[in-house]
Amino acid sequence: MLEDHKRTGAYYNACVQNRAQFAGKVVLDVGTGSGILAIFAAKAGAKKVYAVEATSMAQQAKALIQAQGLQDTIEVIQGVIESVELPQKVDIIISEWMGYFLLRESMLDSVLLARDKFLRPGGALYPSHAKMYMAPIRTNASYHRSSELDNAMEGWKEFTGDMKEYYDVDLTVLTDTYKKEQADYYLQTSAWCDVNPGQLMGPPVCFKEYDLLTVTVDEIKAPLKACFNMKFNAEGDAEAFVGFFDVTFAGSTENPADCPVVLTTAPDATGATHWGQQCFFLCPPVTGVSQSDVLECDFEMVRRTDNHRLMAVQLKHTLVSGGGGVRGQQRVDKFNIE
Amino acid sequence: MLEDHKRTGAYYNACVQNRAQFAGKVVLDVGTGSGILAIFAAKAGAKKVYAVEATSMAQQAKALIQAQGLQDTIEVIQGVIESVELPQKVDIIISEWMGYFLLRESMLDSVLLARDKFLRPGGALYPSHAKMYMAPIRTNASYHRSSELDNAMEGWKEFTGDMKEYYDVDLTVLTDTYKKEQADYYLQTSAWCDVNPGQLMGPPVCFKEYDLLTVTVDEIKAPLKACFNMKFNAEGDAEAFVGFFDVTFAGSTENPADCPVVLTTAPDATGATHWGQQCFFLCPPVTGVSQSDVLECDFEMVRRTDNHRLMAVQLKHTLVSGGGGVRGQQRVDKFNIE
Repeated sequence: MLEDHKRTGAYYNACVQNRAQFAGKVVLDVGTGSGILAIFAAKAGAKKVYAVEATSMAQQAKALIQAQGLQDTIEVIQGVIESVELPQKVDIIISEWMGYFLLRESMLDSVLLARDKFLRPGGALYPSHAKMYMAPIRTNASYHRSSELDNAMEGWKEFTGDMKEYYDVDLTVLTDTYKKEQADYYLQTSAWCDVNPGQLMGPPVCFKEYDLLTVTVDEIKAPLKACFNMKFNAEGDAEAFVGFFDVTFAGSTENPADCPVVLTTAPDATGATHWGQQCFFLCPPVTGVSQSDVLECDFEMVRRTDNHRLMAVQLKHTLVSGGGGVRGQQRVDKFNIE
Repeated sequence: MLEDHKRTGAYYNACVQNRAQFAGKVVLDVGTGSGILAIFAAKAGAKKVYAVEATSMAQQAKALIQAQGLQDTIEVIQGVIESVELPQKVDIIISEWMGYFLLRESMLDSVLLARDKFLRPGGALYPSHAKMYMAPIRTNASYHRSSELDNAMEGWKEFTGDMKEYYDVDLTVLTDTYKKEQADYYLQTSAWCDVNPGQLMGPPVCFKEYDLLTVTVDEIKAPLKACFNMKFNAEGDAEAFVGFFDVTFAGSTENPADCPVVLTTAPDATGATHWGQQCFFLCPPVTGVSQSDVLECDFEMVRRTDNHRLMAVQLKHTLVSGGGGVRGQQRVDKFNIE
């Protein structure tokens, strides 16, 4: 993921453009991986960096840090942050914990736990804030997905016919189960996408903002609920929602960054970060949208019970005209982020 | 996997062409999945079938069995075979446990355990025997894999150059580790393939045979060692070994099948089963082979320590002429079956 220069560059800039904040400070890098963020912090002037990594990548981080001659500044600790002990509180925590649509993977839990355990009062977080966005978009992928589902069900029909003919076994009792599985996959599973800004049918709405300095693990674990309006500035059919996030490296109130840096994963004609955006397909699309229409949305996202690193999204939405008249019935779409 | 008619058809034939063996018998299906093999056994005349399934697929099996009106004959039991109890010994165990190259997934352990626990003396296994084969083949994939590795290392060189230029971080200390990871992936990881018989450079050699009625779990868990010769009947470059298996449904000595059925996964111009074959790439190829040459092989396969369902293969081989003269140095190739 180091190849993602928008990502790596944002972390680099957040460090080296804020040397006054890092100079002489004690820094903790949660989930250091190759050690790159710890190296950036050291290059920005940190006097000590604890680089914690749960996996055997810690060995590569050590080698890389030694090769930069930074082994006296950076201490690599192999272990899970939940059980690691440090000899002192830290001034800054830096971490790259963001998953698809910000929260997939649930890595933020560990960073907040490290914050509560190791960050001195007034200490800074890099990044310190996160925002989540959604917008309606045009995309042919929604039609493709519907027709792939149709193809799958055609295949099933042929298959059950063969099974009856060849082996005298009637599989049609499983048709509903099969169709549900296929529909979950083709219609209700969100997908990584690299949306071009030209696909947007309205301005992205920031529907959730996290102050990472104050949010609690319990708040992060609770269902994320939000009511918001998506305004259209284009007419036609809305075939999907695009979801994405940005994070800001602003330090803390007591120790603000001199040059706050923003890492955005918004649709960008120059190409996506490795996070891309998440595409939530509307099957069927919301059709016949006018330019001044508004989609009133009631959003809820929870961790999946079968795998807490994955998410389940429910979006209730009603199309209303700019003047306020309801133009369609409320719809409820459900999605899985795999 | 029911769509694989070579597989499903072999099990179907093994049952219905041996009605005299199944009529009035008690059968156990280990890992029944959708319940299809239990249904075949019931259709072949079994008076009672225990269909054991560890996963929630058991619910679908129940529905499918009910839809065939076979719920009085077939009893679906959700649980792992290791902890299931049956009220009686069984006459026949049927199971579809085979993984890629026969033993990947290590599902045979459970079937042998069920055999020792539940099969009455003289009872029959379907399948009852298994054989493993290898042969040298022509394939362009070996060259593609080598050039993909070259591309990956070119990409790495460019990437490390960028990291140095943009962020003043020297990653070259990780080059050897990266190259080893990439070489493992591109050159030493075997791949699913659908080999055409025309690619064979010599007749497949059966290098291992299992009598499933007598082999023990300990024997299956121990390293599989075999010394054998692959004879060439074509000249040119041997670019890979193809590995595959077959199983025979022959019942037991005391209760032999009237019509033994063979399910083979050998290269077949009409297309592969879902197992395909495993392709072990020779990078570089064994070049300049003559028609009467022989490859003396010393084969060893073990379960991987990091995941006992996956396998590690080592093949020492020396090319000798038909007359016995050594034509090349011994080579040692190592492969992972992922």
